[in-house]
Amino acid sequence: MEEINNIEVVPCTESNYLKPFRVHYNQNGTKKSWDFMRTHDSVSVLIFNTTSHCFILVKQFRPAVYMCEWEKKKTKTSQGAEKTEEGDASESQEGQSAPAEASSSPWPPASAGVTYELCAGLVDKPDLSLEEIARQEVLEECGYDVPASKLKRITSYRSGVGVTGSKQTMFYAEVSDDNCVSAGGGEPGEGELIEVVKVPLHEAMTFAYDERIPKTMGVIFSFIWFHNNMSPKYKISTNV
Amino acid sequence: MEEINNIEVVPCTESNYLKPFRVHYNQNGTKKSWDFMRTHDSVSVLIFNTTSHCFILVKQFRPAVYMCEWEKKKTKTSQGAEKTEEGDASESQEGQSAPAEASSSPWPPASAGVTYELCAGLVDKPDLSLEEIARQEVLEECGYDVPASKLKRITSYRSGVGVTGSKQTMFYAEVSDDNCVSAGGGEPGEGELIEVVKVPLHEAMTFAYDERIPKTMGVIFSFIWFHNNMSPKYKISTNV
Repeated sequence: MEEINNIEVVPCTESNYLKPFRVHYNQNGTKKSWDFMRTHDSVSVLIFNTTSHCFILVKQFRPAVYMCEWEKKKTKTSQGAEKTEEGDASESQEGQSAPAEASSSPWPPASAGVTYELCAGLVDKPDLSLEEIARQEVLEECGYDVPASKLKRITSYRSGVGVTGSKQTMFYAEVSDDNCVSAGGGEPGEGELIEVVKVPLHEAMTFAYDERIPKTMGVIFSFIWFHNNMSPKYKISTNV
Repeated sequence: MEEINNIEVVPCTESNYLKPFRVHYNQNGTKKSWDFMRTHDSVSVLIFNTTSHCFILVKQFRPAVYMCEWEKKKTKTSQGAEKTEEGDASESQEGQSAPAEASSSPWPPASAGVTYELCAGLVDKPDLSLEEIARQEVLEECGYDVPASKLKRITSYRSGVGVTGSKQTMFYAEVSDDNCVSAGGGEPGEGELIEVVKVPLHEAMTFAYDERIPKTMGVIFSFIWFHNNMSPKYKISTNV
């Protein structure tokens, strides 16, 4: 799907996206502190196409996931090296500084960083309702034009309790081929490069629990939510 | 539950917990960069007590959630002020610098930062299996001693695709009152202050979808997973 190369990792001293803060506080009389980051709340949307009886997901290269996989591969490789070359212990110790390892560890294929996700976006426009923001994401990312009033709220939850504390609200949108007005794919101007993917309803539960398919919990949860709440309407039997 | 006071927020220039990196790369020939953070993978555990037919959750004060709620309250308050005091526009502009607002905006009650979560922990011990790490968390946080072999893997997914890219593996653990060896509550030495909470099985689905109860998606997903996969065993009818 993607061609990724010329990869270089550098420390990030000043970021427009990741702004750490520290909060000092007393909890039941004990002094504590916690490092956190501010981010916007978000919306996600389970999209079901009633014409083709498919779920509409987005698939994209996620640099953070890719780096995570690279790090794991690196650790495994260096552990393997230590096991097979015990006589060279001092040499493999030296190899532990990040840049040296980076140059010696081959980069995994781009597919290692690609994930399947629900259509989603940040709540960064204070004048718009959550439904309206969700509607815009469905249009931009997946190319379906549906009125905000057709978005059904599924539920909300904390998407990150440790670092960001932000909240996500999940919606359900039924679309048909008639609502499809563009190919979607996100905003290339914002660097988005999104592939729109269809998952047939009858394959959805197998897809959800197949751990070889990298995905977010939102995909799994929303597929099961649909199975429990919407499947009877579509007279489809799916195995959980 | 908690008494939180003496709250002070400061910028965080150097953190042992949040270490931003930047990766430069070429995607299909286009130069891009992405700011991310490295963190450990994690495990989470849905615990079901077969003696009391209750789920065992943890409840704790989450500074990041609290700050998120404070920020929202602040924004609402300042928007409200702008609407009612349009003549004082210049004054409310000045109030937008963070410290000034911090001092003028009252802190919400501690309960605004308390969330219900699955028992969970970081995968930070390379010599231990995921099951063994999950077993330790069940013991430390919830006080139940169950063998790792009794942990059933539910599935895995990416817990954060944007910032951390890390993976979470979810387990299911059946415990009985006989396995209860302590009150749990986490490691006070590590600053953990965790309340163990029981949710009766017959209330679980109502709990899962009650948006007034702050919780993670893991709680909702795992309750539904249990409903679909385990409820027949316990001959319990729960409404989704």
